[in-house]
Amino acid sequence: MVQVNENYLKLKAGYLFPEISKRVKLHCEQNNSSNLIKLGIGDVTEPLPNACIEAMNKALQEMGTNEGFKGYGPEQGYEWLREKIAKNDFESRGCQILPEEIFVSDGSKCDSSNILDILGNENSIAVTDPVYPVYVDSNVMSGRTGNPLSEGGYEGLTYIPINEENDFKPNIPSKKVDIIYLCFPNNPTGATLSSIELQQWVDYANNHDSLIFFDAAYEAFIQDKNIPHSIYEIEGAKNCAIEFRSFSKNAGFTGVRCAYTVIPKSLKGKTLGDEKINLWSLWNRRQSTKFNGVNYIVQRGAEAVYSDEGKVQVKNLIDFYMNNADIMRRELQKSGFKVFGGINAPYVWIKVPEQMSSWDFFDYLLNKANVVGTPGSGFGMAGEGYFRLSAFNSLVNVTNAMERISNI
Amino acid sequence: MVQVNENYLKLKAGYLFPEISKRVKLHCEQNNSSNLIKLGIGDVTEPLPNACIEAMNKALQEMGTNEGFKGYGPEQGYEWLREKIAKNDFESRGCQILPEEIFVSDGSKCDSSNILDILGNENSIAVTDPVYPVYVDSNVMSGRTGNPLSEGGYEGLTYIPINEENDFKPNIPSKKVDIIYLCFPNNPTGATLSSIELQQWVDYANNHDSLIFFDAAYEAFIQDKNIPHSIYEIEGAKNCAIEFRSFSKNAGFTGVRCAYTVIPKSLKGKTLGDEKINLWSLWNRRQSTKFNGVNYIVQRGAEAVYSDEGKVQVKNLIDFYMNNADIMRRELQKSGFKVFGGINAPYVWIKVPEQMSSWDFFDYLLNKANVVGTPGSGFGMAGEGYFRLSAFNSLVNVTNAMERISNI
Repeated sequence: MVQVNENYLKLKAGYLFPEISKRVKLHCEQNNSSNLIKLGIGDVTEPLPNACIEAMNKALQEMGTNEGFKGYGPEQGYEWLREKIAKNDFESRGCQILPEEIFVSDGSKCDSSNILDILGNENSIAVTDPVYPVYVDSNVMSGRTGNPLSEGGYEGLTYIPINEENDFKPNIPSKKVDIIYLCFPNNPTGATLSSIELQQWVDYANNHDSLIFFDAAYEAFIQDKNIPHSIYEIEGAKNCAIEFRSFSKNAGFTGVRCAYTVIPKSLKGKTLGDEKINLWSLWNRRQSTKFNGVNYIVQRGAEAVYSDEGKVQVKNLIDFYMNNADIMRRELQKSGFKVFGGINAPYVWIKVPEQMSSWDFFDYLLNKANVVGTPGSGFGMAGEGYFRLSAFNSLVNVTNAMERISNI
Repeated sequence: MVQVNENYLKLKAGYLFPEISKRVKLHCEQNNSSNLIKLGIGDVTEPLPNACIEAMNKALQEMGTNEGFKGYGPEQGYEWLREKIAKNDFESRGCQILPEEIFVSDGSKCDSSNILDILGNENSIAVTDPVYPVYVDSNVMSGRTGNPLSEGGYEGLTYIPINEENDFKPNIPSKKVDIIYLCFPNNPTGATLSSIELQQWVDYANNHDSLIFFDAAYEAFIQDKNIPHSIYEIEGAKNCAIEFRSFSKNAGFTGVRCAYTVIPKSLKGKTLGDEKINLWSLWNRRQSTKFNGVNYIVQRGAEAVYSDEGKVQVKNLIDFYMNNADIMRRELQKSGFKVFGGINAPYVWIKVPEQMSSWDFFDYLLNKANVVGTPGSGFGMAGEGYFRLSAFNSLVNVTNAMERISNI
């Protein structure tokens, strides 16, 4: 019989969000409740920007004609999209990223887990705690960890706590790690890093020959002009960092699927025999062999994000969600909660009442207020005692949810 | 410095199609030629079926409204699409495949390489020769082979030749292999397997506890009513086979990106400790963690393939390409070539003239006729001496290409 990849058997329980769905379903069945407000999964709710709809509509019509039809596109994405990205997301912020250093894909979830394909299993890995579960699970599945630990987490991974004590800013590790995942603005805590703080990480990585995976999926929500949007704004980052970006949260593409990954050509890894290898070439080969590019229509939609009209519409979407976040912060503080995040990120991170666990608080909010959030412990051990609420919802739902919570 | 996955360094030269592009580009520059006819890459050329355009248009408009907007969909695909697939592609042919055994994805290239994620590295692997290069390269990249061999191929892989001598039907292996890739109708040879022949493979797999990866990407091109479209038409296949299907070649979705993989719930693998593990659960976990579903608009387009209008339009597309294949077969035979395939598949497989290699013939056709095909040796050692021409092109291009070849 075929051998399975036994690393999968190390994975604990279900992925966080399926577990939430299960509890919510049970609650609705038992209480005959349909009046639920979901502030759990970080999924956008507002319609696509009109500029994107128009561009996609045009592209769709082309696909119905002999002249306009497009078959296989480049696995790396169309040149015209990569050029727009390089210009608008990087050049405009003083970063020199070439179009060919940008790989367009169908999602950051895929990219941030597939990236491990090109790296050896010997590398030591560090994640912040709490953290986006995909980083951890993809390492477990590919055999880069040991077994689950009874206190939570996995053997062999380095966890860098981010919590109230350190203002949700991870401390630079005292020992060397080969790969570090950083997501800022942070999911789930909503925290950010200043340029000076991020510079310390880049310096650490360059001094220790480490590689940073920088997830900037939430950069569009930054309000403070001094916070970097890209790690490449930091000196030296092109020698130590891969950046993941997505159209999911800025332009509402969660159901459309488009993202990109930046691998600077200067980025190097090595063989066990100390030969230096270009990471760009490995990823290019990976994508050419195991991926077939993103839908043409979708890439035209993504391109429209960078049109004048698109930029205004995306900004309006961001303002809309950040107004929600602002309401949430204010109302939750009024209700007596200690609240973090929600200023430069679409997530507010609440300290749950003493003597309650994160899952206790999940059940409490679900039962008392018909509001769904995400238990902090689902993001890691150091998330215990916290709770994430997402600002991705309609104004009326956010307002109602806050009112219900204040009335408990 | 971060360690790379050194298995990538075993990969020989470039992937086949980039090598072709390079030679074509050089030829065009040197000859100032723009009158090229490309029958190389198996990429469709005709517009999308109107039923798909209409369905996608409707879905796109929904995405621009508050009521119709869709965010993250199920990682496995929407239930309504999986139900249509189960009913039309399987139930209608007497196969009992449940909707939940169907995993919708963005392409068979991804699925047929990602499937290795859930399997151990200890499994022995067999491929036919010639073969779709992705099967081989994804095994090399994940460390399932040794080094490249001087005579071609990789150490540790079992190659099962398909050639004129065995009528392009692979012989059942004499020793046990754990995993066998079968693609029928075959890419690149255009050969098919009858139910009786496929039954022998299923029996072999069940008798040896082996797993078959059955790639049915070209099933829509089958004209002969006695040839199975799905491996699940064969008794016992649900205990030994995973099937890959795609909307790329039937509905022209190469630039749209939609495919699916069938993993029957009865399919088992085992741990080194002989514990039996459900492969469905592993793939479900893999897709939930490393993939975020297919674009909603695209899934509505795929659904329309199964509408009455869609079925007629897809059939017209197939007839169109198969008419091309028919012309190619006839004209090439008239020109004195020995021609295989092209009857139940969109590829014709030519025996190249004596004393020429496949790449010689590639250069010869390119220089003498301005026609691009694919050298058989690019698909493996046993492809040497053969050449693939694709029927995916306009009627006028196909007719002109055949005229040019006959005039050499």
